[in-house]
Amino acid sequence: MKKLSLLLIAFLTTSIIALGAGKPKYVFFFIGDGMGMPVINVTEAYMAARDGKIGNTRLFSQLPFIGLATTYSDTRYITDSAAAGTALATGEKTSPGTIGMNADHSKNVNSVAVQAKASDMGVGIVTTVSIDHATPAAFYAHQSSRNKYYEIAVDGTESGFDLLGGSGFLNPEPEGKTNVYDLYNQKSYKHIAGKEALNAATPETSDKLLITERKGANTASFAYEIENTDQDLTLADMVDFSIKYLYHNFSEKGFFLMAEGGMVDWAAHANDAASAIGEIIGLQQAVDKAYAFYKAHPDETLIVLTADHETGGCSLGCNANGYDSDLQLLQYQKASKGELADRVGKCTNWDQAETLLKTDLGFGSGVKLSDKEWEKLKNYFKESPSKCGRRAVELLNQKASIGWTTGSHTGSPVMVYAVGAGAENFSGLMDNTDIPKRISSLIQ
Amino acid sequence: MKKLSLLLIAFLTTSIIALGAGKPKYVFFFIGDGMGMPVINVTEAYMAARDGKIGNTRLFSQLPFIGLATTYSDTRYITDSAAAGTALATGEKTSPGTIGMNADHSKNVNSVAVQAKASDMGVGIVTTVSIDHATPAAFYAHQSSRNKYYEIAVDGTESGFDLLGGSGFLNPEPEGKTNVYDLYNQKSYKHIAGKEALNAATPETSDKLLITERKGANTASFAYEIENTDQDLTLADMVDFSIKYLYHNFSEKGFFLMAEGGMVDWAAHANDAASAIGEIIGLQQAVDKAYAFYKAHPDETLIVLTADHETGGCSLGCNANGYDSDLQLLQYQKASKGELADRVGKCTNWDQAETLLKTDLGFGSGVKLSDKEWEKLKNYFKESPSKCGRRAVELLNQKASIGWTTGSHTGSPVMVYAVGAGAENFSGLMDNTDIPKRISSLIQ
Repeated sequence: MKKLSLLLIAFLTTSIIALGAGKPKYVFFFIGDGMGMPVINVTEAYMAARDGKIGNTRLFSQLPFIGLATTYSDTRYITDSAAAGTALATGEKTSPGTIGMNADHSKNVNSVAVQAKASDMGVGIVTTVSIDHATPAAFYAHQSSRNKYYEIAVDGTESGFDLLGGSGFLNPEPEGKTNVYDLYNQKSYKHIAGKEALNAATPETSDKLLITERKGANTASFAYEIENTDQDLTLADMVDFSIKYLYHNFSEKGFFLMAEGGMVDWAAHANDAASAIGEIIGLQQAVDKAYAFYKAHPDETLIVLTADHETGGCSLGCNANGYDSDLQLLQYQKASKGELADRVGKCTNWDQAETLLKTDLGFGSGVKLSDKEWEKLKNYFKESPSKCGRRAVELLNQKASIGWTTGSHTGSPVMVYAVGAGAENFSGLMDNTDIPKRISSLIQ
Repeated sequence: MKKLSLLLIAFLTTSIIALGAGKPKYVFFFIGDGMGMPVINVTEAYMAARDGKIGNTRLFSQLPFIGLATTYSDTRYITDSAAAGTALATGEKTSPGTIGMNADHSKNVNSVAVQAKASDMGVGIVTTVSIDHATPAAFYAHQSSRNKYYEIAVDGTESGFDLLGGSGFLNPEPEGKTNVYDLYNQKSYKHIAGKEALNAATPETSDKLLITERKGANTASFAYEIENTDQDLTLADMVDFSIKYLYHNFSEKGFFLMAEGGMVDWAAHANDAASAIGEIIGLQQAVDKAYAFYKAHPDETLIVLTADHETGGCSLGCNANGYDSDLQLLQYQKASKGELADRVGKCTNWDQAETLLKTDLGFGSGVKLSDKEWEKLKNYFKESPSKCGRRAVELLNQKASIGWTTGSHTGSPVMVYAVGAGAENFSGLMDNTDIPKRISSLIQ
């Protein structure tokens, strides 16, 4: 009977917390692009392995509510970031390539961010890739093709959102068109470019903000976490600043902040585990900022984290190693696969390449290579230096025992993690379209 | 306010249901060996695709509570069925190969089934593979090696469990030892061999029961669901009979039934999607029997379903097809990869093999093949007829767009699904060792 009473108290407490927490005022929606369940597990297992343990060092997976969401698009089992982004932003299943419209492009569909803005909440959309990329675009744009970068960027100027942030724009000034930055300026967005400028900026401003990387940095994306420097913006920087800015202006009306870790997908496309792990740890650092806010406002804050789809068909395990794995080897990789292919690609002789493979991948020291493996890399180098760089990263993945089935996306469902006000709505099985619908009904 | 009240009622109802349902009397523990999340998704997506739809035809994934469980063993990220079975049965992380003992084999650890028996509950352990195989063994045996089949089988005779069922035993009579069937007989187990005998048997008996396939059938396993006949036992047959038997004898004290779909793993090891799908649908048919019982005893019944590990690194998607898939093609496969390799292996000329590939894999009709693909298969046939059979199944997997990273297990976490009394304890993130601990505390 005592046990029953305790259970009763526990359940009533849960109910009361859930009730008090039913209507979030501050909503964080994190999306790890291409971040399937296996690569999250690989990241957590890697972190434990690096510390000499077997197990999982928990990241956001320890948020108290978990769910699983199917990701198929209107026409294909294996979705893309446009259809998946539209599903996550608007609740509409649409066709691949489509941004903020229904499958046959006969009507626009609005995102939960648009709804939040219509309710006078603050809205911020930030990403580690370009602002006009599919996932962020789905929250403010309506275009039949994700490739209409200029048109998407122009839609952003019309969004009325308070803060847009990312690496930049992919097509800021097509011939005969007004420069996108000028258009944002006309709409009174203040432009903050680069980390130094962001550090110097005060979030206590009522200006609308456009935040991008510094001039001359890669406009397609931030630097990979695995290779970034003090001068490079991170998602954590963006989220930290956005929280301060949004809370300054919308402590009364509340806010909605979408933050995308856009390059988990890119790393997974490249079948590059170390880079994907870096991006996921970077995403966690951004989530930490939101979690600190949640701790300060526990009854009014909701954090939801999911992915738009799985990329790469990742697994901890591959044919080459059977039941063995050596995840800690991934710590020796110092740059992304693409960057390493470039670096090795620039080597004019094998000695230079060998030195690079030693410094940037730990080959020969932390990562033991057989004579045969060195020979193979040397032969790749003769064939094509950049190919040698790519094959070296693939070899490291294999030695760590990371398997990949594809350079594209897969149709695997993705995890949903949630904490805070209304978080219980994000547990169990759901479709990706259910997520914005549930956020929407919570902020109504 | 009305919304709040409704929420209040909803939560109180949940609480009350959860309270009323806190202590299950009848516990079903289903284990899909090697059944990772992706292959469940592939099965559900296949079923929808076969019906001309995009989406998931829900199987047990629609059970109301879902969780995710890590599977690593004491010493390896990629576990085996012995360590994983011991974790799921006893709550002890142990070393690969170990059955019902701790990692260094210094002590035995008891399963939740042993606990149930000690509380005078009825206990049944059934599987589609041999009774002495790692997963079922972990519920009753204590052996330093999963390969000690005879010793494991002898442990079974000492278990005092009410019903043990599977295909048979792998080593029933080593030289100089008493036949295992005789030992079971000495312990008053009545032996029912084969479907016909099971159909004729009455579950309303107080005898202890040993159920196996008919004499002469494969002792290593049941027939694959994809190729079974009216004469072959299925997991659904076993569960159906076990429920009637256990309820007849233990309606007062309650019962614990572990039922394993042991061959999802085998199909996944072979990277054979159609056979894995067949096994998962077979598992669902067994779950249906338990679910019908749950519907009749909703406040006293708990069903928990999980997997011991992922096998194969399966994904819906593979390099060959990018973003496309054609899952319905898998319907044309009429036998398992091993069986097809045998059948093609017996062909003495290419014409025979071609005919087989047409009838048993739908090649040339449902499954279109290019001239080049036919040529390739013909060349494989010249090299080795059975290899041609295996390659043909691999080609079908590729055409459907099923990717695999390994012929071994992987370190991916697995899903946990639950319904009924105490089912809320199986939602969220957990370790595989938490599952039996939670069942244990519920039946205490």
